[in-house]
Amino acid sequence: MADLAAPDTAPDTAADAAVDPANWTCPAPLRDQPVVVMGHGGGGALSAELIEQVFAPAYGNPTLAALTDSAVCELGGARLAFSTDSYVVRPLFFPGGSLGDLAVNGTVNDLAMSGARPAFLSTAFVLEEGVELAVVERIARAVGAAAEAAGVLVATGDTKVVESGHGDGVYVTTAGIGLVPDGVDIRPQRARPGDAIIVSGPIGLHGVAVMSVREGLEFGVGITSDTAPLAGLVAAMLEVTKDIHVLRDPTRGGLGASLNEIARASGTGVRLRDRAVPVPEEVANACGFLGLDPLYVANEGRLVAFVPPEHAEAVLAAMRAHPQGTGAALIGECVADHPGMVVVATGLGGTRVVDLPLGEQLPRIC
Amino acid sequence: MADLAAPDTAPDTAADAAVDPANWTCPAPLRDQPVVVMGHGGGGALSAELIEQVFAPAYGNPTLAALTDSAVCELGGARLAFSTDSYVVRPLFFPGGSLGDLAVNGTVNDLAMSGARPAFLSTAFVLEEGVELAVVERIARAVGAAAEAAGVLVATGDTKVVESGHGDGVYVTTAGIGLVPDGVDIRPQRARPGDAIIVSGPIGLHGVAVMSVREGLEFGVGITSDTAPLAGLVAAMLEVTKDIHVLRDPTRGGLGASLNEIARASGTGVRLRDRAVPVPEEVANACGFLGLDPLYVANEGRLVAFVPPEHAEAVLAAMRAHPQGTGAALIGECVADHPGMVVVATGLGGTRVVDLPLGEQLPRIC
Repeated sequence: MADLAAPDTAPDTAADAAVDPANWTCPAPLRDQPVVVMGHGGGGALSAELIEQVFAPAYGNPTLAALTDSAVCELGGARLAFSTDSYVVRPLFFPGGSLGDLAVNGTVNDLAMSGARPAFLSTAFVLEEGVELAVVERIARAVGAAAEAAGVLVATGDTKVVESGHGDGVYVTTAGIGLVPDGVDIRPQRARPGDAIIVSGPIGLHGVAVMSVREGLEFGVGITSDTAPLAGLVAAMLEVTKDIHVLRDPTRGGLGASLNEIARASGTGVRLRDRAVPVPEEVANACGFLGLDPLYVANEGRLVAFVPPEHAEAVLAAMRAHPQGTGAALIGECVADHPGMVVVATGLGGTRVVDLPLGEQLPRIC
Repeated sequence: MADLAAPDTAPDTAADAAVDPANWTCPAPLRDQPVVVMGHGGGGALSAELIEQVFAPAYGNPTLAALTDSAVCELGGARLAFSTDSYVVRPLFFPGGSLGDLAVNGTVNDLAMSGARPAFLSTAFVLEEGVELAVVERIARAVGAAAEAAGVLVATGDTKVVESGHGDGVYVTTAGIGLVPDGVDIRPQRARPGDAIIVSGPIGLHGVAVMSVREGLEFGVGITSDTAPLAGLVAAMLEVTKDIHVLRDPTRGGLGASLNEIARASGTGVRLRDRAVPVPEEVANACGFLGLDPLYVANEGRLVAFVPPEHAEAVLAAMRAHPQGTGAALIGECVADHPGMVVVATGLGGTRVVDLPLGEQLPRIC
């Protein structure tokens, strides 16, 4: 679990008590741990370490240190966005969606975050022997419906089966290709001091919806996942101006992780206004109950945008006029102070630092 | 296991004995079974049924009934090949290669089978909690080395972690994009009576190499997997003529499955010459020992080509001059007789039918 790796966790479990103190090393950020922990898949600091220390050197490709969202590749004269994600959400079906919706919307949104118009998807299923074909069909139908809603074609696919006990029903990996319009250059490095920071709607709904039905965590709340395709919203924003600097969909690790990544990639600071961040009351209540911070809860149908201040008002208006952006809000600004750091101005007049989370608060959220 | 679905298996297990005879239906081809069996991932008749009966209707895309190898998509004026595969091979390392090599070469080869020059790959890892980071690193390094050897760039990626007991160490899903040269149109539907059928080298090596180290099946043979990228070989063949009709890499289900799929897609027949098919002695011996047919054993560095007869000799010569084609052989021809059917002329003067296998002879071979 991700919290095995939490730096402020006291060693109070039986397993911890059995550790030989003479050979004990700090378990966080797990650089000396020889095994994979849940946090390596959480989209936070441990995920970043895995990329920087394992994948980027192995692939001999330092640009992969930015192995997030989509890559922009030139091929045959076209500027393509290319992205992939595996989806291992548990349970497979949750209020407002399913693994199939996530697998489409997540990859469509990764493409959209580089300004691309998503065009083609692939789906690769890893099925566990013994899973009901009706479950596979229900997920496949969700994929088909979500692809149609997002305006993309599932062009190719694969299916593998693993023995019972070596999977978890259904894992789906999607990859996607989209076309980046001329003149569009959207990436975390382009954040500039002065940029307005806009979020497209209330945060935390996906994470709380999944948690609400997670085994052992049932706490009936009447909220549903925000899973949705965002390419149409992005197209509407680009009609206002092509000079949008950064787009990001705050999935694993939530808004907190996304803003930290942008601050680090661009060498700027982020300053949020606490009360401007739209947190639905049910999300706030659930987070209070579970001891979670809404800033770190996953979203699957929201984006955060860094927009030059002269365009901020018009972009915000265009977002609010789009079905996926009715709840859009200006939540802060990009600053030259404290580069690489995200701070929140609290309602009491103070500030607090929002650090990059080590892992996901609850794993397998997407 | 795939053999649960074998049509000629007598109901002789305890589980079978417990079936109520009044409600019993034939377990093959499993249309009435409500659950996923290993054979659904085997690349044979059960895989085809899953695509035709579940995925194609769910995606509302009848062209997906041809959900194999790579799709050719038009985007931004470019003709792109796009492909994906999940890799779940067990064990992760085997004589001659690893999961990492397969994950690159398999997708590179799927792109090459439409004549494309592979350019970009994505990798998505699903890691099991507790797997050693050294294992992940070893696989990542194999991915990096194989990508360099194949001349492709790993452009984007993802990592998820699932709880211990819900995975099998490492699963990797790759997707790839390549550019299809002008004037090239390679697909199973283009097979024509008279086409020469050429295989690029000895068959069965990958499957036997993996089986040789599979738990419980150790039988020390000195052979290694044929895993290799084939895009260079295809480029050399296309230099002879762009009018190559069909290319296929006979992976899951082996040469037998690939030829059946081509015969069915094109409405032609395939006639092989038994003794012309290059089966290494060690593969023949291992298959005899295990009761397998080499025609159904997986390959990961071989292709089969359907070539107009006037170009056959020159294409064969070009293949033999390429490092990946030194063992190329003319193994038969495409005929107008028995459309959709593959037959082998035996050394004794008779013929036998090579049917589409139901599933993989041994699962999790790639």
